[in-house]
Amino acid sequence: MTASPPLFGLTVDQWKSTQISSADPLKNILDLVAAYDPKDPAWITIASPEQIKSQWDSLPKSLPLYGVPFAVKDNIDVDGFPTTAACPAYRYIAQADAVVVALLKKAGAIVVGKTNLDQFATGLVGVRSPYGIPTSTFSSSHISGGSSSGSAVVASKGLVPFSLGTDTAGSGRVPAALNNLIGVKPTVGAFSATGVVPACKSLDCVSIFTLSLKDAQLLFSLAAEYDPTYGYSRRLPTKPLKTFGKRPLFAIPSNPKWFGEEQNKVAYEKAIEKFRSLGVEITAVDFSILYELADLLYEGPWVAERYAAIRDFMQSPEKMNKTVYQIIKKAENFTAADFFDFEYRRKDIIKKIEAQFDHFDGMIVPTCPLNPTLADLEAEPILVNSRQGTYTNFVNLSDMSALSIPAGFREDGLPTGVTLLSKAFHDYALLDLAQRFLTADKTRLLGNTGVYTSSETDILVSTLPQLSAPETIPLAVVGGHLSGMALNWQLQKVNATLVKRCLTARHYRLYALPNSNPPKPGLQRVGPGSNGESLNIEIWNVPTEKFADFISMVPAPLGIGSVELEDGSWVKGFICEEIGYAGAKDITKYGGWKKYISHTSNGRPF
Amino acid sequence: MTASPPLFGLTVDQWKSTQISSADPLKNILDLVAAYDPKDPAWITIASPEQIKSQWDSLPKSLPLYGVPFAVKDNIDVDGFPTTAACPAYRYIAQADAVVVALLKKAGAIVVGKTNLDQFATGLVGVRSPYGIPTSTFSSSHISGGSSSGSAVVASKGLVPFSLGTDTAGSGRVPAALNNLIGVKPTVGAFSATGVVPACKSLDCVSIFTLSLKDAQLLFSLAAEYDPTYGYSRRLPTKPLKTFGKRPLFAIPSNPKWFGEEQNKVAYEKAIEKFRSLGVEITAVDFSILYELADLLYEGPWVAERYAAIRDFMQSPEKMNKTVYQIIKKAENFTAADFFDFEYRRKDIIKKIEAQFDHFDGMIVPTCPLNPTLADLEAEPILVNSRQGTYTNFVNLSDMSALSIPAGFREDGLPTGVTLLSKAFHDYALLDLAQRFLTADKTRLLGNTGVYTSSETDILVSTLPQLSAPETIPLAVVGGHLSGMALNWQLQKVNATLVKRCLTARHYRLYALPNSNPPKPGLQRVGPGSNGESLNIEIWNVPTEKFADFISMVPAPLGIGSVELEDGSWVKGFICEEIGYAGAKDITKYGGWKKYISHTSNGRPF
Repeated sequence: MTASPPLFGLTVDQWKSTQISSADPLKNILDLVAAYDPKDPAWITIASPEQIKSQWDSLPKSLPLYGVPFAVKDNIDVDGFPTTAACPAYRYIAQADAVVVALLKKAGAIVVGKTNLDQFATGLVGVRSPYGIPTSTFSSSHISGGSSSGSAVVASKGLVPFSLGTDTAGSGRVPAALNNLIGVKPTVGAFSATGVVPACKSLDCVSIFTLSLKDAQLLFSLAAEYDPTYGYSRRLPTKPLKTFGKRPLFAIPSNPKWFGEEQNKVAYEKAIEKFRSLGVEITAVDFSILYELADLLYEGPWVAERYAAIRDFMQSPEKMNKTVYQIIKKAENFTAADFFDFEYRRKDIIKKIEAQFDHFDGMIVPTCPLNPTLADLEAEPILVNSRQGTYTNFVNLSDMSALSIPAGFREDGLPTGVTLLSKAFHDYALLDLAQRFLTADKTRLLGNTGVYTSSETDILVSTLPQLSAPETIPLAVVGGHLSGMALNWQLQKVNATLVKRCLTARHYRLYALPNSNPPKPGLQRVGPGSNGESLNIEIWNVPTEKFADFISMVPAPLGIGSVELEDGSWVKGFICEEIGYAGAKDITKYGGWKKYISHTSNGRPF
Repeated sequence: MTASPPLFGLTVDQWKSTQISSADPLKNILDLVAAYDPKDPAWITIASPEQIKSQWDSLPKSLPLYGVPFAVKDNIDVDGFPTTAACPAYRYIAQADAVVVALLKKAGAIVVGKTNLDQFATGLVGVRSPYGIPTSTFSSSHISGGSSSGSAVVASKGLVPFSLGTDTAGSGRVPAALNNLIGVKPTVGAFSATGVVPACKSLDCVSIFTLSLKDAQLLFSLAAEYDPTYGYSRRLPTKPLKTFGKRPLFAIPSNPKWFGEEQNKVAYEKAIEKFRSLGVEITAVDFSILYELADLLYEGPWVAERYAAIRDFMQSPEKMNKTVYQIIKKAENFTAADFFDFEYRRKDIIKKIEAQFDHFDGMIVPTCPLNPTLADLEAEPILVNSRQGTYTNFVNLSDMSALSIPAGFREDGLPTGVTLLSKAFHDYALLDLAQRFLTADKTRLLGNTGVYTSSETDILVSTLPQLSAPETIPLAVVGGHLSGMALNWQLQKVNATLVKRCLTARHYRLYALPNSNPPKPGLQRVGPGSNGESLNIEIWNVPTEKFADFISMVPAPLGIGSVELEDGSWVKGFICEEIGYAGAKDITKYGGWKKYISHTSNGRPF
């Protein structure tokens, strides 16, 4: 962006705080939308002032997305807006919000426009639309990728802090990579697709584009709601995995397909080296079985889902993009028996994938192999499109969660992306791994907004709006397990959550255990009349089913006993055998382990 | 049965003990098979003496099915036996056992024959076969039900103690009801169907017919093994539900369809009253949505799975049963797009079923509405068949577990059955509920063997041959938790098991904690060079999932830390805060808590 009005290029976080402190938050949105270029092919519909005002109503400031604008791909319904799926003849005025749109509006967000796409979400290129071609935000001679082209472009330009796409075979990941965005492809069914024009309904996902990782986390948590009216809806587990731990094991392709592309290869290999340096164990594995599954999507009968979605409309080819029509027309070649033949093959391939990858936490792949020019695409429209799906096509077919993240820039200044993949419902854990990657650098460009990350942009929060509380046991932690300390990952690993910081009863003394690595303290309970003190501790809720896993990691002389709190109540908590602290340095006067650590010479215990 | 050789009419349990104590167990099988009537239309192939001998090999007596004979439906492969699927032209010699057959043979069971069926398992009647019609074992003018007709008949007659069927839409339940058997229809995917001629592969289940409930439990546990080569295979949860508890909540249809049948209605209502009297809370619910799903199976494209399975063969209609051919031929009317239309409807209906039935533990339905005569069927072959599926067709389509059990006899002496239904993987809990029902009466007839239940026939066992050991964590217990001591119940409560009695390393001292009730000791670890001793302790394996429950019961000043054993290894175990034993009586010289307790005046601490 060059000449930006003040509210271009903000993250969700920044938008929200701007709106809360603003004298006229509604006007901010109206001004924003007034500044949009109606000729920008990224938009199909820009919200009218009336449409904005009618959404505003009486939003309480406490909402998690208070007054935050967002854009919606034009195959997703927004009440009162036209839905076209990039096909003018298909156009209708939506009578209700798609469920995901409704959830985000309920959280305070405001729809400011509907965005361009490959017609009927058929394509990974972003050029198959009569509404024009939204090119890469980094180069007008390069494609933006698709099918969610418009949503990616408006987010990358900073016209909105986030946008919704859809992703059946890569449509939410490929344009994220080509426009330097975060692209969340949730587990199939984690987001409702009620109110979305189906592409392949059994595989469709609503996806999210954001500038920052923190925003991606928040939006995922708000959009992931079970929808009992949606056939493919699935509940998140009550305790979804939150982290892969300190040394996760990830697979990369030993036979990556680059189709002659050199620059993206360099960027990908650099990204892999960075993951390695961050403690991720990387193993190169033969990905042939995944490519085989990807091929199945192109050869197979899933295109009949597209056909079933617009069956009547397929009788009017003149109203459709020629390439899109030809692709969907192929569905007529498949019988129901053919479907089952392919479905059985898919099931068998998935079993092979499980056998081959089960001991990995996931995979790290290029989001797409190429950054094609418009000319490349004109020369080979079908081939380029299918190559771009190499690392995305197999993902929904094998029921994986996926997250595309920026992976730095090529020599020519174009962005690249890598995609983190894992099993279904590992969406949060993927965010956690992405956090390590994105925060390892000092700063990074957000989309193509011209704005760079602040210290918090990609830091996830630990207390999200809770979906449903798992059964837990409160545990008092005293030393290395405190937040920010060396052993805190053990709590993260068992999905424990911080309840509060508080004080013990005035009956304890604290010692720095000698020869313990990482450094750990030992807590001594002393009798009444002794010189006991109150010490700063934290209470964490540990899921009961993981308690044994947790205690397995606790070394002697520590153990889990009972600890008395300031208010006289007792909780389970860390205790220490006498032999541990006998003769050790008494650090009670520091009032707690964190204070003591910050007083030690190097400031950090590890 | 009238003139039975001695080994007709035995349960699995009885067969096994007979074989173990027999001087020539192989001869028992050979004699059994020699007594079979080769003209009995229930059989398609009876094992030759050579086929029996080659299976016998060197079976160890310790096997759970040592020398127990069984019959296999002729659409399931048995190594070296022909498979016909009741279509002579389709016949081939199997080169390997189906996975379920292999598992049962590995457990010691012997295949004694292959049984008749509705051709290609298409039908619920048992008459669509060129190999003859196995009629009801209770009446030669009534049908046996199908498609697993032969397997039901040979089990009901007591020719084998159990047999395998298949069940896609009721084929394992309907003939169970019509022949007074237990019919286990496992959760889809719980048993592998590798080596089974597919009917509708995405819905197919191998099923089990038994005379007794105890046998059903044992066989389910042996057959439910994950098969990584089978596309639809699913793992049982590590902790499958074992019981619905004391007052389960079950739904029955408020609008049952009887199609004019009166006697079965009476039997069903009597069964429901009996469930009520046993503490089951019964609520009548509108089942329309389930009937709608059942209709989908008949109207919809799943028949294309049957077509896909025998695609080439469908080119030779002259080789097939006319009715079966006509049914499967309909698959040609369905395109892949049609499939998806129906699949979306199915998904939507399942969501409605969930919304309506989620607060129930399950449903109790008639297994089938009718006990048709051969004449009934001749008059209305398709109509009778489809009516018989009223309460079975929807079950696999909505991913339920099912168990058909005998529900008493009609005035005309024909048997009836009820089917217990619940969510996927509730198979064991269904068995538990069936136990309450079947053991409420003093005795009951087993199949039509002439033999009645003994006191144990339908009593489930609590320790099945373990599929996989539950995950446990070893824990050193020192005092009140030792076997026979006052707190040992806490270990029992979490299903912990004693591993061994042993000694700690020579680094500990033991104290009798003052004012602790019941009396408890505290363990102190002392440094090298101090006067540490080895103490008698016990190691218990605590299930990890219960560890949090256990630790919740541990009071201060005790806790769970790490304890060093005599051999230098460390395990989790009881430790004690210093404040607990400071000033307490040192009882180290007794060598352990039990010895100390036996030295105290009253001999028992509680």
